[in-house]
Parts: sequence; C-alpha cells; structure tokens
Amino acid sequence: MNIAKQAQLAKESSLKLAALSTSTKNKALIEIAKALKANLKSIIDANKKDVKSAKKMKLGEVLLKRLILNKHKINEMMDEIKGVAKLEDPVGKILSQVELDEGLMLYQVTCPIGVIGAIFESRPDAVVQISALCLKSGNAVILKGGSEAKSSNKILAEIISKTAENNGMPKEAVQLIETREEVKQMLELSEYIDLIIPRGSNNFVRYVQEHTKIPVLGHSEGICHVFVDKNADIKKALDICFDAKCQYPAVCNAMETLLVHKDIAKEFLPLMARKFRQAKVELRGDDKVLKIIVDIKRAVEEDWSREYNDLILSVKIVNDINEAIGHINKYSSKHTDAIVTEDKKSAQIFMDLVDSASVMWNASTRFADGFRYGKGAEVGISTAKIHARGPVGLEGLVIYKYKLVGNGHVVKDYIGKSARKFKHRVIKKFF
Amino acid sequence: MNIAKQAQLAKESSLKLAALSTSTKNKALIEIAKALKANLKSIIDANKKDVKSAKKMKLGEVLLKRLILNKHKINEMMDEIKGVAKLEDPVGKILSQVELDEGLMLYQVTCPIGVIGAIFESRPDAVVQISALCLKSGNAVILKGGSEAKSSNKILAEIISKTAENNGMPKEAVQLIETREEVKQMLELSEYIDLIIPRGSNNFVRYVQEHTKIPVLGHSEGICHVFVDKNADIKKALDICFDAKCQYPAVCNAMETLLVHKDIAKEFLPLMARKFRQAKVELRGDDKVLKIIVDIKRAVEEDWSREYNDLILSVKIVNDINEAIGHINKYSSKHTDAIVTEDKKSAQIFMDLVDSASVMWNASTRFADGFRYGKGAEVGISTAKIHARGPVGLEGLVIYKYKLVGNGHVVKDYIGKSARKFKHRVIKKFF
Repeated sequence: MNIAKQAQLAKESSLKLAALSTSTKNKALIEIAKALKANLKSIIDANKKDVKSAKKMKLGEVLLKRLILNKHKINEMMDEIKGVAKLEDPVGKILSQVELDEGLMLYQVTCPIGVIGAIFESRPDAVVQISALCLKSGNAVILKGGSEAKSSNKILAEIISKTAENNGMPKEAVQLIETREEVKQMLELSEYIDLIIPRGSNNFVRYVQEHTKIPVLGHSEGICHVFVDKNADIKKALDICFDAKCQYPAVCNAMETLLVHKDIAKEFLPLMARKFRQAKVELRGDDKVLKIIVDIKRAVEEDWSREYNDLILSVKIVNDINEAIGHINKYSSKHTDAIVTEDKKSAQIFMDLVDSASVMWNASTRFADGFRYGKGAEVGISTAKIHARGPVGLEGLVIYKYKLVGNGHVVKDYIGKSARKFKHRVIKKFF
Repeated sequence: MNIAKQAQLAKESSLKLAALSTSTKNKALIEIAKALKANLKSIIDANKKDVKSAKKMKLGEVLLKRLILNKHKINEMMDEIKGVAKLEDPVGKILSQVELDEGLMLYQVTCPIGVIGAIFESRPDAVVQISALCLKSGNAVILKGGSEAKSSNKILAEIISKTAENNGMPKEAVQLIETREEVKQMLELSEYIDLIIPRGSNNFVRYVQEHTKIPVLGHSEGICHVFVDKNADIKKALDICFDAKCQYPAVCNAMETLLVHKDIAKEFLPLMARKFRQAKVELRGDDKVLKIIVDIKRAVEEDWSREYNDLILSVKIVNDINEAIGHINKYSSKHTDAIVTEDKKSAQIFMDLVDSASVMWNASTRFADGFRYGKGAEVGISTAKIHARGPVGLEGLVIYKYKLVGNGHVVKDYIGKSARKFKHRVIKKFF
C-alpha cells in the first residue's frame, strides 16, 4: 500500500475516532497494555534482531542503550499506557458557551486534530507512547521510527493496531511507515495529514520544518539563557545556574549562555567559575568577563548562537536588563530563558519582554518539561508561536469546533430595520 | 527601505508592543479615531484620486462602491476603532495556573503573536480595521492593500502609524507595503513574520497558502451544506434552507449543496423547489432528485465541489445520515455545515462526525460569522485545524507563554532517591 493511500485511510479513520467515547478509548488503551505483556517474548525476540544488526553496524553506546527492550522497559511502557488511560479526556470540553439569542446557543468544543504524522529516531518505546497519546485524544497516527529499531517498531505497531481494532477503534487508527522515501512523501500530504510531530536531532527537526507545509509541533535548537541581575541573591544564582548547566547538559532546556549584570559580576563570577570548574565546565567569556576570570577562552560571535549540549558555557557581562533582554531576543531559540533577581519589577519586565515559550524567575531552565509542568504526558516542546507553545501535553492534540444549536433560526431576522438584536450572553469562557 | 528590513523593524517593534498596558493601547486607538476625523479632507482627497483612476481602469461597480470613502464611511471607521478600544484586552489573561511545588508557580499567560502580515484587496477600510485589531492585541502589522486603493491606503496607514507613535507605541508598529513583488518577498520572511492573514478571492487566498511557510489564518472556498433529515420539521427546513441560500448568496457561509433524506424528499422537495423558484434559484439535482423535481438541470460530479457564490444550488437525496456525513466530509470546505432535524440523537451524531469548523443544528449556515458569534470584531474565518478555527476574533491574534516563578528552585532536588515530589496543584485551568 502506498503512503498516500495509507494517509487517506488514516483520515477516514480519524473521522470515526473523533466520536469515540472516553470509556471506549480507555478500555482499548488498557487492552493494549495487556497485549504488550502477552506478547513479551515476541517483542523481545524482535528487538534482539534489531540489537544484533545495530551492533554489527557499530551503533554508538548511547543509542544502543536506548534501542534495547527488556522486561523492565516493557513494564515501563505498560505503565505509561495506563497512565495515559487515566488522564482526563481532552476531547469534548466546552471552551466557551454563548447564548446568541433566545434558543440559539453557541458552544465551542474541543475535538481531535485529525491525522498526526509522528517521526522519531531509534527508541522503540516512542511507538507506544505516541500511539497512546494519539488514541486517547481521538487522532489517527502514522508513525515512522528509526530504521535501527525496525523489527521492534513493527511488532509494537502491529500489537497496538490489532488490539485497538479489536476494541472498537477503526482499523487504520495506528499505522507504521518504514522508509525515508515514505517520510518525504508523507511531508507532502497536507491534504490528509494535519500535524507533524518530529522528535530527534536538531538537523532532523529542521529538515522536517523546511520540507513540509503541514504544521510542525516541535523545536530544533534549545539555546537557553540565565540572566543574573544586579539584585540577584548570590546563593540562588549559583544554585540555579549550576543546575541549569550541569544537572543534565545534553538536553534542550539546559543553559547555553550565562548573562551577568555588570554591578554583580565581580562578586558573582569568581564564585560561579569555581563551582563550574569543579564540575569540569568549560567557560568562554567576552572581553569583560575575561577581566574577571582570566584563565578561560574568549567567546566568539558564533558562541552566542551555539547549542553546546555539553559542559561548555558562554558567559557575557551586560550593562543592564535591557541589554540582557536584547541579547536573548536576538540569540535565544525562544525555548526557555530565566532571570535571577530579588527585584519583582525587573522580573516582570524580563518575563513580559523576553519572547520565549517559557520565561522563568528564580528557577532553573531545566523545569521546562511536560512532566514537571504537570501535564502527565508530553507530546513535545514547541517553539512555534501558533497552536501550542512550550511543553505540550494532550491539549496539543486537540483543536475545537463551534456547535451552534437553534430552533429554526435564520439570519434574515437579524438584518434590516426591524432586526432582532443578538443577546451574546457569555455563559462560560475559557479566558 | 526593503521589505526584509521593514519586517525586521516590525519584529523589534513587536517585542515592545507586547509589554504595553491596556490603557496605552486604548488611548492610542481613541487618538487614531480622532486623527481620522481631523484629516477627513485629506483622506477624501486621496481617495478621489484612487476613484478617478479606478473609473479610468473600468473597475466593476461593486469594487468601485467598496473603494469609495465618504464622510459616512469614515465615521463608521471611527466607530469601529472605538469599538475595538472597548473590547477586552486579549493580552495578559491567565489561561492556567499550577502550583508545581511550594513556592514554585507556573502561569500560562496570553501574549501577542508578534508580527502579522495582512494582505487584502480593495476596501481601504480594511487598513483601519486590521491595524486597530493588531494594535489592540499588541502585534506589529505589515499591511498590503489593493493597488486600486493605493493613495487611500497610504494616507490611512500614515495617519495610524504617526498617531500610534505619538501615543507611546513603537514607530514601526504599523507599516504599509505597496507592490505585488513585496508581497512575494513578505511570504518568504518566516524569520520575522509570525502569521499571514489574507483576505480576498479564493484564488488569492489559495495562492498565499501555497506560497508561504508562515502559518495562514483564513479560508479559500466556502462550500457549505444543509442536510434535511427524515425527522426534520418541514417549516424550519424551508426557512433555514431559504435563508442559507438566498439571504446573501455571494458570501462564504451561504449554502451550496442541499442534502435531503430519502424518507422526507417527496414531501419536502416540491415545497422547497417552489420557494427557490420564486427567488430565481437555479437547482441542479442528482438522478433521485430529478424524479421528484423534473424540470431542473442534472448535477454533475463537479457540482458537488463548486462554490457558486450565486443563486445556484446543487441538491442530492441521501439514504441516511451516514451518507450525508460522508458526502459532507468528502466535499465540504470544512467551513460550516448544518443539519435540520427534530431528533437530538441524529443532531449529536452529525455535529460530532462532521469535520467542519462550524456545525449547526436547526440554524442557518449564515450565522457563522464573528459578529454574530459575539466576538465584537472578526479577524477572519479559519478553516485550518491548527491555531484558531472558525470565525476568529481578537483571540486569534494571541498565543501564550509560560511564566514560572520560583525562589531558587533547581531540578536536582526532584531527581534521584530522596527526590521531592511535585504537587501539581491546579488552581485555574482554561478547560
């Protein structure tokens, strides 16, 4: 079957998925979890094939670790599905309710987006996680996993789609595609696919963003800043900057550039540098920084737009909060940026003017994450300005429709000299 | 100045606009309304130039009427600006508020999208309306109007941008571009422009959608359906169908195809046809319809996807509600579709399964409109599934950011064996 046909079937499935009850969806999810348990041996066998070829291909240690499925990981996957089943159904929520006139009620109600195209690298558990989120939110999904996990992805997708079908879901709710060529084709199917969710390296996400007209939910770089203001509490600043850089440097919400107010630099920077040195963080400073911390590399222009994803940090001294905000709005990837200050006014200015998905006051950038934000499950972190922004949970997989309920109402009665007036009585509103 | 530079300045302006207080924005709007009054004569003079060339170019009667600005129309524009000033500020609303842990509060707060590119044909009043909506919502805007209205657009944009600047807004908050070539360039500036709003003919909107990677808010076709169910009240069905087709046939929310349940067709169709004949509506029926109404044209396949925008209607008899829903999901432009029925269950199925921005029960499709929906002002009607859908008011010009407020909180404390647990206490939630 070609991908256009698959996408068309996904579209048809999605129209049916939209009307499923919460209990049907939750039951199917629980059954999928059970089916994973029942097929434990076949899953592990399929995965062994992938691991074997991966070793032959000399796949790196980290990727190999992510690829391997054992009983423990499969149990985790089951728990995750059960967790999604427990989440509130994002479909059918009334966002607003307006009485337009007597007997004429307008409801704004959440509904699924339709067909999601999810593309990710290695990690076969992503098949399970993304399918569960899509089914819960009533969306059909077309999955493309990494080729290293080919056999694992295939058996997982088969178990999920068969179990879903046996539990009242449409047959093509979850489908898998396997080749890079099919991904290319998928990116062109804006007629059938409503949203693309890419997960993977920056280059990969950027490739997807540049090669499709379908909306993309995700982010490529994470160039995050911490600005230590002149009124910062030194202890908090040290803790937050250390956490933002060192707690897990390889991720998108880690700090890449530290901005320090000139009035506090002489006191703060030597203490900070000592702490970073102990953690083997390489510092790169601008000229002003080099006058205080003498034994580090000079930061060059391209350092300000580098995502190191490593124990490297660029450091700059700024004259005031405006320079800090200007630097961030110029170089940040609009993911997450933080200010450390005891001055509420400065914090407000910073949080209003910094144009990023998450802005923080006296907290580590590492908090920007769906789980930590209390979303239960994370679809992705979006740096786009449209649709969903920042860490996105199930709410990023729904949109809304308007339902207007009348009793024979016609527009003619509201036009002309003796026109009826609308009431527009707001009964419920989402903000 | 080239358009890339203009767009860059718009971006810089937008960062400042985001932080303006409601009172500053409202005051600027009131002053703009006053400035229009003060410049009445110059506006009318500029407009006369446009009208003169338009007459020379033999512009059609309808377009000419839209182009002409007189005292009355300028007064209307002033009222519109004052109306926008009175609307609730869409910026700074708290959509959700979660206590992640003691002293660690997460706020989801609305903020402007950034830079809007608005492209429209003729109607110089659009310059005023769109600028007012963008300024109110804290967005910078780059406007491109129709070349027929060149002089009128220019003086209006100048008055607006100068008055805005004199009242505390950044200089490049409102800018005008004038050539088609610049539009092409603008569609490529995804680095600076966050949202494109095209208004105009279907072909024009489709051109924009196909030539940009920037999200587009709008719609091309409006192919709307009314389905008369077997349990319809005949009187309501006649009134609603007549209103949906005849009240204003040239607009996007008028009915283009009528679907009738076979069990009610013999009773309903002859009455409906008589009513339509009196209004000079040309009917085109499928084979089953032709057996009941014999003296009309046969509908061909392409009739089902035609937006007539005229007193023409295609009519089809369906076997049941599922066939009606299937037909609509195949041929509808996903703008607005209605069911007429006294059966609540059928209405619910229809409204859940029809995949359109507005779905209606016992009401005319003509109600799908920002003013009638009580939005005060309409930015556009969106048939996209992402961002905003259906009639869109000021809420379509904002997105949100997350503001996290801590007191030195670091992620390290929430990791590992003696990890602190998150509270995730939801204080306020938008659905």
